[in-house]
Amino acid sequence: MKISILGSGAVGQTLGKSLSDSGHEVVIGTRTPASLDEKRGYAASLKDWLASLTRRASVATFAESAAHGEVVINATSGRGSIEALNHAGAMNLDGKILIDVSNPLDFSKGMPPSLTICNTDSLGELIQRSVPGAKVVKTLNTVTAELMVAPHKVAQGNHGLFVCGNDESARKQVAVWLNEWFGWKPEQIVDLGDITAARGTEMYLPLWVRLYGQLGTSMFGISIVR
Amino acid sequence: MKISILGSGAVGQTLGKSLSDSGHEVVIGTRTPASLDEKRGYAASLKDWLASLTRRASVATFAESAAHGEVVINATSGRGSIEALNHAGAMNLDGKILIDVSNPLDFSKGMPPSLTICNTDSLGELIQRSVPGAKVVKTLNTVTAELMVAPHKVAQGNHGLFVCGNDESARKQVAVWLNEWFGWKPEQIVDLGDITAARGTEMYLPLWVRLYGQLGTSMFGISIVR
Repeated sequence: MKISILGSGAVGQTLGKSLSDSGHEVVIGTRTPASLDEKRGYAASLKDWLASLTRRASVATFAESAAHGEVVINATSGRGSIEALNHAGAMNLDGKILIDVSNPLDFSKGMPPSLTICNTDSLGELIQRSVPGAKVVKTLNTVTAELMVAPHKVAQGNHGLFVCGNDESARKQVAVWLNEWFGWKPEQIVDLGDITAARGTEMYLPLWVRLYGQLGTSMFGISIVR
Repeated sequence: MKISILGSGAVGQTLGKSLSDSGHEVVIGTRTPASLDEKRGYAASLKDWLASLTRRASVATFAESAAHGEVVINATSGRGSIEALNHAGAMNLDGKILIDVSNPLDFSKGMPPSLTICNTDSLGELIQRSVPGAKVVKTLNTVTAELMVAPHKVAQGNHGLFVCGNDESARKQVAVWLNEWFGWKPEQIVDLGDITAARGTEMYLPLWVRLYGQLGTSMFGISIVR
């Protein structure tokens, strides 16, 4: 499948390697596709990322990446999401499923991070308003990148994940992909309904960050227990 | 043990009946202790509540209740918490553990509720600032009232609970009480550290409310899965 990943940091690289290595045609989109030697935040350079792959993938502009994708994944930092989507271009996103895995975390004032948008709005909703022609489905934002692509690494994959978005068939399709691509168990995927539920999954992040600090590891999930 | 419960709604009544029936000396504090016949929001009247008890408890003003308690539980609605604590009086709270189970939910603009305070502050922190002489420990605010006092009703009690507060020994004491009073399993109680973690547990509420809607029941918990 032709997959566009917007964002070249740890999340984009982790998703991209997993999807490329399992046979998908991945194009990572970035503001600076020519800077292959530059370290990407805490993550490797894209040159090192490309060298780590078992199959060929490529790096392009946001617009080229989005044009390539049958599905587009927003893996930019929350801060950069709207600008990246503007660069990607509505004509390259219209009618497509846009999987949003970003969080509106603001580390600029130190720890703990706050959210740049919350409570009566969310980044997921803002993104849907920014690209009304795309079918935004928010998911994966409640776990660390390594766990997004390998849920079995914690408790044999017996922990939960949320999907939300305004288009029901898009939510169901993404749930199928989460299983096919990464092995998320269907019974662990909770459909939260429309995109306003992104408020809930994004506002979980302050608790996630605190748990990360107290547990001393980012390799954890949460389960809904009934 | 002499226990003060501030708040006469569903949460205060549920906590109060459980603690009274198991032998504690409970005094519920309310703004309107004389109005025993009045329904308390969605909950019963205090006359009916008193009649439901297997042992004797009483109803008093916030100040009388707080003066009685060796420990004080804030079970008011988030909206009314600061006023209730002002009525309770610093001299009746100083040096005591104040267990805060409230959430800053605002239903005034309809569903979904928003939070009256979040992101860079929390109700738990606001309460600690309002009564600096008390040892505020936030807990139980992530589950419905029925589950607070009977965690075994879901998955044999195998689901998580959070405690946070600035005083470590108070957090440990509350964890012991949660086990002794209600049967919360020690291994399920996660110590999140100081009171700023209340941001995380209160900001979980929008996700809780959404899950409540989607699952069709409030009888659920979350587990941290490692």
